[in-house]
Amino acid sequence: MVRLNEDFLKIKQSYLFVEVAHRVAAYSAAHPQADIIRLGIGDVTLPLGSAVVQALSKAALEMGEQKTFRGYGPEQGYDFLRSAIAAYYQKHGVSLETDEIFVSDGAKSDTGNITDIFSQDNIALISDPTYPVYADTNLMCGRTIRYADANEENGFLPLPDAQTEGDLIYICSPNNPTGAAYTKEQLALWVSWARQHGAVILFDAAYEAFIREDGIPHSIFEIEGAKECAIEFCSLSKTAGFTGTRCGYTIVPKALVVKSSTGEEMSPNRMWNRRQCTKFNGTSYIIQRGAEAAFTEQGMREARANIAYYMENAKTIGDTLAKKQIRFFGGVNSPYIWMKCPGGMDSWAFFDELLNRAQVVGTPGAGFGKNGQNYFRLTSFGTHEATAEAMARFDRLF
Amino acid sequence: MVRLNEDFLKIKQSYLFVEVAHRVAAYSAAHPQADIIRLGIGDVTLPLGSAVVQALSKAALEMGEQKTFRGYGPEQGYDFLRSAIAAYYQKHGVSLETDEIFVSDGAKSDTGNITDIFSQDNIALISDPTYPVYADTNLMCGRTIRYADANEENGFLPLPDAQTEGDLIYICSPNNPTGAAYTKEQLALWVSWARQHGAVILFDAAYEAFIREDGIPHSIFEIEGAKECAIEFCSLSKTAGFTGTRCGYTIVPKALVVKSSTGEEMSPNRMWNRRQCTKFNGTSYIIQRGAEAAFTEQGMREARANIAYYMENAKTIGDTLAKKQIRFFGGVNSPYIWMKCPGGMDSWAFFDELLNRAQVVGTPGAGFGKNGQNYFRLTSFGTHEATAEAMARFDRLF
Repeated sequence: MVRLNEDFLKIKQSYLFVEVAHRVAAYSAAHPQADIIRLGIGDVTLPLGSAVVQALSKAALEMGEQKTFRGYGPEQGYDFLRSAIAAYYQKHGVSLETDEIFVSDGAKSDTGNITDIFSQDNIALISDPTYPVYADTNLMCGRTIRYADANEENGFLPLPDAQTEGDLIYICSPNNPTGAAYTKEQLALWVSWARQHGAVILFDAAYEAFIREDGIPHSIFEIEGAKECAIEFCSLSKTAGFTGTRCGYTIVPKALVVKSSTGEEMSPNRMWNRRQCTKFNGTSYIIQRGAEAAFTEQGMREARANIAYYMENAKTIGDTLAKKQIRFFGGVNSPYIWMKCPGGMDSWAFFDELLNRAQVVGTPGAGFGKNGQNYFRLTSFGTHEATAEAMARFDRLF
Repeated sequence: MVRLNEDFLKIKQSYLFVEVAHRVAAYSAAHPQADIIRLGIGDVTLPLGSAVVQALSKAALEMGEQKTFRGYGPEQGYDFLRSAIAAYYQKHGVSLETDEIFVSDGAKSDTGNITDIFSQDNIALISDPTYPVYADTNLMCGRTIRYADANEENGFLPLPDAQTEGDLIYICSPNNPTGAAYTKEQLALWVSWARQHGAVILFDAAYEAFIREDGIPHSIFEIEGAKECAIEFCSLSKTAGFTGTRCGYTIVPKALVVKSSTGEEMSPNRMWNRRQCTKFNGTSYIIQRGAEAAFTEQGMREARANIAYYMENAKTIGDTLAKKQIRFFGGVNSPYIWMKCPGGMDSWAFFDELLNRAQVVGTPGAGFGKNGQNYFRLTSFGTHEATAEAMARFDRLF
């Protein structure tokens, strides 16, 4: 008699953004004339740059010609893309070998699938509030979770202390949802703690391209010793607008080695390689050519222009909040603004009020954890016009 | 202290095709002038049809325009593609609702990832010989495996009997590597057995488009009652030449319901949906548009023409083997020919002999399981010229 994975019963059926969509749909049905502005979900809105589009088109045509057709590619990604990623890391002073870089269809897949190479009985340490995927993927395989409080007191950047406990340390910096970003010194404390305790840091660098300030690492591997204790996930979704095009990558350093229970040396790099060769068949050749183009000079210039556009929105939002003396985090090295709900309001109540009274949609902080209960996430992925209009309504409302 | 998944120590480090590539590379280095013909790995060689290429190109351009740009798509796939797949199944008399269809980057991912929704303590029943992925993905999560002997006696099509034991029944028909295909009556025996024993059939239909004979089901759901006990994987890799383009799909019927250990009704459809929403972010919009085109009349015509081309190779190979009175299976409803090694030779010995004396590369049956020890897999994915030349050398050799 078959048994299903009953750990699934422990995770909530409804995903945060489903509930948000549900409430917006209900409001929209009741008010068909309403001009609703969405500053909720973290999806990009500007089209792909022309370097990327040209590369995608060219690769699509290549697939239709006998001479240039490509069948199965390497599960780990083509060398042309792995080399382009290695060169990108070199700009931040990080030297990687190409076989430490694994190309995939996106960082969400890798962040979830990486759990395969770890034993069930590790403790996952996840900050609260958090991107829900870290917690859900660990609950799905029956792992114990500890939460590290991220709050106003620590600037939403928890650091290790005597109480810290965990084997798999999830760190997302610049952070989703809070927009807070660790300095090099702060990250070094985590690296040092992980090495002392034999823990592995799972570092999500999805928002690194939004970093504006010096002293904020783009990669955990900018920290001395991180290659002995960390795995990094990144993606072209937010850096080059690939949310619907799908390409990400994961760095598993060969210097990371863990002893088995019988003392055998095990290599997460080789294990992830085996996992990907067994349960994945590589990213589409066409998409990898598009990704390669995103790392060219023209591709980077076009991507930076889009990010600069979004960051103007972040400034518009930040300026309005500052004017209203509403406390907020993020918006400097991140497309996310994490604001305190006015008057200590509950985040879902604030969601409803903002939707009903200003027709603006954001994301309730409670959806990211208990420490988000009185916070609200706004994103800078809208148009300048819509963002300005949303802030004008906000200004009138409070 | 972190613990890695030590079940990985149980799986072989080297993948079958890696060893094949290694021996070919060594031969090639020693004989730089040799004209090596590869009838080994199951990768397509003909380019994508023009319907698909046009759709891919158009979608790539759409991603560069503000009005037609697409960000995150549905994790389950776009409705346009799910509907096209449902219409394709309807041609074989199978009615599916679109929310029973999940689009992905390929059947290998889904076949591996499906293990997430099942408990660790199920027994997987896998035929021997087998596509290595079924076994490796189950070993990786610590599951017990039973093997069902597929041999000359049962025409490489094992059927349930009094000794049969298993909770997850892997069936690949038409089969990789043997090319054997179950009739409707034979599959009905498996469906009936699964329903009686509360087992779930994981049906791999990757080669359904190669079926030439009546009475061979293209889908397990052509069998009465299969929706209550089966999940099906399929892909455009072999049907439309998508091995490097990457698109597959999985059917999880809503009629499949399993009781939890506490008597709660659990739905694999909802669980797979939750799994994909948590660990996957949808297939590239561009690729989904290409896949949609593969299901149009023109797309199907172009795909059928390619398959007909490959099947001529299967005939060339089959005719040669028949002439030499070498026993073989497959090649009728499948691109694979599963031949008995001449003179009862061991499959790796035959591999070396064929490579050394005829410069032809195939796949040793032993790589697929103990019952493959005296068998050898040839594939029909070469050109007509190369296949004919390989068979001429074969003819001279034996």
